[in-house]
Amino acid sequence: MDITPAPFGPAAFSPAEYDRRIALTRAAMERAGIEILFVTDPSNQAWLTGYDGWSFYVHQGVILGPDGPPLWWGRMQDCGGARRTVWMPHDNIRGYGDHYIQASDCHPMEDLGHQLSGIGGARARIGVEMENYYYSARAHAVLDAALPEATLVDATALVNWQRAVKSAEEIGFIRKAARISEHIVQTAIATAEPGLRKNELVAAINAAAANGVGADWGDYPAIVPLLPSGPDASAPHLTWNGAPLQRGEATFFELSGCYRRYHAPLCRTLHLGPAPQKMLDAAAAQAEGLAAGIEAARPGNRACDIANALNAALRKAGIEREGRCGYGVGLSYPPDWGERTISLRASDETVLQPGMTFHSMPGLWQDDWGLETTETILIREEGPAEALCNIERKLFVKD
Amino acid sequence: MDITPAPFGPAAFSPAEYDRRIALTRAAMERAGIEILFVTDPSNQAWLTGYDGWSFYVHQGVILGPDGPPLWWGRMQDCGGARRTVWMPHDNIRGYGDHYIQASDCHPMEDLGHQLSGIGGARARIGVEMENYYYSARAHAVLDAALPEATLVDATALVNWQRAVKSAEEIGFIRKAARISEHIVQTAIATAEPGLRKNELVAAINAAAANGVGADWGDYPAIVPLLPSGPDASAPHLTWNGAPLQRGEATFFELSGCYRRYHAPLCRTLHLGPAPQKMLDAAAAQAEGLAAGIEAARPGNRACDIANALNAALRKAGIEREGRCGYGVGLSYPPDWGERTISLRASDETVLQPGMTFHSMPGLWQDDWGLETTETILIREEGPAEALCNIERKLFVKD
Repeated sequence: MDITPAPFGPAAFSPAEYDRRIALTRAAMERAGIEILFVTDPSNQAWLTGYDGWSFYVHQGVILGPDGPPLWWGRMQDCGGARRTVWMPHDNIRGYGDHYIQASDCHPMEDLGHQLSGIGGARARIGVEMENYYYSARAHAVLDAALPEATLVDATALVNWQRAVKSAEEIGFIRKAARISEHIVQTAIATAEPGLRKNELVAAINAAAANGVGADWGDYPAIVPLLPSGPDASAPHLTWNGAPLQRGEATFFELSGCYRRYHAPLCRTLHLGPAPQKMLDAAAAQAEGLAAGIEAARPGNRACDIANALNAALRKAGIEREGRCGYGVGLSYPPDWGERTISLRASDETVLQPGMTFHSMPGLWQDDWGLETTETILIREEGPAEALCNIERKLFVKD
Repeated sequence: MDITPAPFGPAAFSPAEYDRRIALTRAAMERAGIEILFVTDPSNQAWLTGYDGWSFYVHQGVILGPDGPPLWWGRMQDCGGARRTVWMPHDNIRGYGDHYIQASDCHPMEDLGHQLSGIGGARARIGVEMENYYYSARAHAVLDAALPEATLVDATALVNWQRAVKSAEEIGFIRKAARISEHIVQTAIATAEPGLRKNELVAAINAAAANGVGADWGDYPAIVPLLPSGPDASAPHLTWNGAPLQRGEATFFELSGCYRRYHAPLCRTLHLGPAPQKMLDAAAAQAEGLAAGIEAARPGNRACDIANALNAALRKAGIEREGRCGYGVGLSYPPDWGERTISLRASDETVLQPGMTFHSMPGLWQDDWGLETTETILIREEGPAEALCNIERKLFVKD
């Protein structure tokens, strides 16, 4: 089922989809004994309300009580953006004054304390996302002081877990992101050549990401392009510089298309000039590992089964890989396109369900080279997972 | 003085520059009675050590004690990136295991507690950045529990304040960013036309940002392009969609060039088709406000003097503007290109010093339209500030 929503405008999903999300979240709140939930994760805000804007660098969030539509709370000047993107009645948008912004003598959480008291939260059990980029240690201390009779309980990832199984509408978005991912990776491989400066290659990649594919416009991915070359590729998470690409070096491309905040990460590696046998062998092992992981990625199996199958295939080729080899993906805002729930690693026994989506990511960072071949996969109703992108799994070589 | 550093490679600045930064920070630590400082803000990490990578989505930081070079601490797999970017000896790079990553049964701050104890921190006064995106409420709670005899004190913005006055080397970087900002804004204005889809315009903008100017390659700005049109421009902080640009609508461009993490934000507004008089008048008032602010932006004056002069000029044109109208800028990582120290507003009495740089930002977001004309300004040794970009201050109109 491939639902095609309107190409732009507020509230990206159907009312039934938002109802589903609210109901799932309220059930999780009840299990955790949480009366009011305050959500700061921008992805969770967007998932529950549709809110979309680059305003998460100031304090803001979504308040969900036991009934009625959620409230969006943020900086007064961002209420305009909320009115243009959320599905709730505009009475449910609450703003705080600009004097709170990055001030040392007051804090927006004082205002949030008043807001929560005003809706019966003064003595409530209130869930907060203790482990989130956008809920600082100070924010927690100020909110705690502002609500002396309330109980703040840790609701980290409570909403993220509700997002793990994607709806048909969401899978439609991720499929569009996957088409854009293919377009970006193909552009990177086609454009790269010895002498081209790395930043010029990024210009082509970023243009492809925004252009998107056909009517499906490209949104900004939650992580910028990562594309280290040669010895720099021994480290993950380096971005780029102005150095020219060199013959005799490999560059890995860690990229994702983004369609309306939904991601389908896709990594490939390109060698300029004839590739050394050790890299060709490692790339073949990576491809076998991915295939083995996909084979194990069936409903009823566990997250660790994917990791164990993948690592066993690598081991057969003499590669001992440590660390996790994947994570849930979908809706996200910077700085991470992962969902921060399920990890593909030996210790994670989460049972796989149809509609879950993962970035299977067996990146190899060796002493003086690196190799990334990855897939975004969808757990199906039965059988092995579906790889959502269709780009050959190999070390690309341009001579 | 325009210093031209190597176009790429680790440790962007001279040893003397890093010495200056460490000395300033240690003096501030001493004033605050802080024996060991733990810095999570990626901008502060980069400023002190040169560390550069998109790895701030996991816990990491810089540890600065009373003597010796700082330590960089982070995820084991990111130690490779640290070895390639920091100026310290590689013994000063410390990694924690991958099992800590986004786990629910353990937390990287447990490892940090051990690290700090190992360097004499078990009973020390340790400064932490309580108000930072990358120091979560949970991180603070875990670190506090891991160091029961230490005293954690709030060192929010302690390093940021040391960054307020830029060195000659830093100003050289910001000037390069300003050239890139001009290039991006000129590209946006030249490319926009009725019928062009917003995301296609973003493709051109992002390509210009990465291409940079001449040898000065473009880095990723800490905020993605903001370019709402027509009624959407009544709200700040909206990003983009796939809607075609319309004749009869204005689009504001909130953009910044970035040279090696240094920013020089620059906003302009473009109207397609003849512009309404009210917008032309407001743009003229904005230009007068900017000029009045620049005139007041002299060493010895205060931050509020800029804001008051700017707002007085707007008021003369009948525009009452609330909220802050600018902030310090320079080195930054997502999600904010502001320094989160000085705000240009009536309540901020910080004395202006030569070498300070601000984004003077009197954006207007009205009922059904918006207008942004802004400048990045440098406080000089004497006289009014220098506007670092050179693009006419007006409402651009294309007919």
